[in-house]
Amino acid sequence: MSDISFELARNSLNEFAKTIEDCLVGSLPRPDGMEAQVIEAMRYALMAGGKRLRPFLVMQSASLFDVDLKLARRVAVAVEYIHTYSLIHDDLPAMDDDDMRRGKPSVHRQFDEATAILAGDALLTNAFEILADERTHEDAHVRCELITALAKAAGAIGMVGGQMIDLKAENQNLHEKQIKRMQQMKTGALIVFSCEAGAILAKVKDERRKALIGYAGDIGLAFQIIDDLLDVESSSDDIGKTAGKDARAGKATLVSLMGVKEAKQAAEAVIDDAINQLKLFDAKADILRSLALFVLHRAH
Amino acid sequence: MSDISFELARNSLNEFAKTIEDCLVGSLPRPDGMEAQVIEAMRYALMAGGKRLRPFLVMQSASLFDVDLKLARRVAVAVEYIHTYSLIHDDLPAMDDDDMRRGKPSVHRQFDEATAILAGDALLTNAFEILADERTHEDAHVRCELITALAKAAGAIGMVGGQMIDLKAENQNLHEKQIKRMQQMKTGALIVFSCEAGAILAKVKDERRKALIGYAGDIGLAFQIIDDLLDVESSSDDIGKTAGKDARAGKATLVSLMGVKEAKQAAEAVIDDAINQLKLFDAKADILRSLALFVLHRAH
Repeated sequence: MSDISFELARNSLNEFAKTIEDCLVGSLPRPDGMEAQVIEAMRYALMAGGKRLRPFLVMQSASLFDVDLKLARRVAVAVEYIHTYSLIHDDLPAMDDDDMRRGKPSVHRQFDEATAILAGDALLTNAFEILADERTHEDAHVRCELITALAKAAGAIGMVGGQMIDLKAENQNLHEKQIKRMQQMKTGALIVFSCEAGAILAKVKDERRKALIGYAGDIGLAFQIIDDLLDVESSSDDIGKTAGKDARAGKATLVSLMGVKEAKQAAEAVIDDAINQLKLFDAKADILRSLALFVLHRAH
Repeated sequence: MSDISFELARNSLNEFAKTIEDCLVGSLPRPDGMEAQVIEAMRYALMAGGKRLRPFLVMQSASLFDVDLKLARRVAVAVEYIHTYSLIHDDLPAMDDDDMRRGKPSVHRQFDEATAILAGDALLTNAFEILADERTHEDAHVRCELITALAKAAGAIGMVGGQMIDLKAENQNLHEKQIKRMQQMKTGALIVFSCEAGAILAKVKDERRKALIGYAGDIGLAFQIIDDLLDVESSSDDIGKTAGKDARAGKATLVSLMGVKEAKQAAEAVIDDAINQLKLFDAKADILRSLALFVLHRAH
């Protein structure tokens, strides 16, 4: 594996981002009247850029098992709907109160708060409509398994619960275990779903599925540590959103607990583990291996 | 049918409301940490009372086809989750800005805005988790059909789209057709789903399913007309929420377009039609017939 570099994943991600955006726009409901504004807001949020990491993970995990890419693409769109809804709601004044997202006005600044709330609600709802459609998989059991896994990852003991903890954590001294649990719920669960989706689509339940879940847990944790590092070290221009917010909000992060140097070392160790999880797979998993290095590279 | 009175449905609804509340509480996720607050908010909203009309319609439509009530109850819970989430988000300051709901502080007043947004998001998400579970129906096709129908009813060209139109309708003179379309999306679609759910669970696709959809469309419309009448005629104490809001917001309603007397007559005609839709069914449908009369009775 010594010949794998982070550039493989970076280039692959960049190329993929363009193709998935066509699918995202194509999957939107067609408005027939005055409701058009909420669909415009959904489109605005979906098209605001971003790395498209979660849909990329769906496509890569599906390709490990030779799943029809047409099916995987529908799951990738559903995951990006969920991720995008969570960003819209997180940015609201009552939540993280962020006016900027990926260098552009956030949805409630571009439209208004009510439209932002509704656009998030509609993306969340329509993600499940996409998964339940028979075009996603001919086997309805598989569709139900995808829906169950995504709902658990996104719901009250997943992403929403993690956001609840994050909001309550201001000026509380969470210890490392609590912060890791929060991160696992708030961002980790959806990354795990994205990596597991390929195995669900392929009806694979063996140790390869466990390996993908382990890999996803690792890169989710590394991703969060590096986000925290960037939040401490970067200016707002570099990361396209307001920097240094966590520190100002009095939030403990793994970086504030460990210090910058130790946090970087921890991220490196976690990324080593992520790559190690993939030893069951042949060269087909090289892009996922490279992606782990790419996650780490963002901090350098 | 001359011996059917609205009291049959009223008593049946009152009795049902108690039993469904146990199911609603029992279906909540079990928190394991600091996310407990969002689940408390979900519980608070679910337990705030209300007529439980939508879950009642699920149970009644299921009983027409002798569907196992255990299955129907899960669908009833999912529908009430969706309805409750929509009330939480509608009450937010950025939306209808209502401090009171069913005579109690609305969720964002009892907790805070962020918790209210998250509790709505979690109820919406977990509704689909409930439907995708194999305990809802042994046939995964049926579960996917329920999810598709509920997502369409609740999404951007259903309930969310209707709320978008409602927000944009302030100080615009919507004509009758636009108002009816808005109502059909905002509240009608979920009532139609509730009545159709019994047929979906029983895999019935014949004219009985169409009849239930027609019945649901009628009572949904009548329900909205009567809500508008109550909004004009009642005090806040009577209806448990802030009265006269529509008029103050400059919103056209069917009542403001037709006048009180004509609106009452229109509601009566629609209810006659609702009862007429049920002629395919025997005495098992008497509670649904009585319910149509009960909807009308609220205006007297």
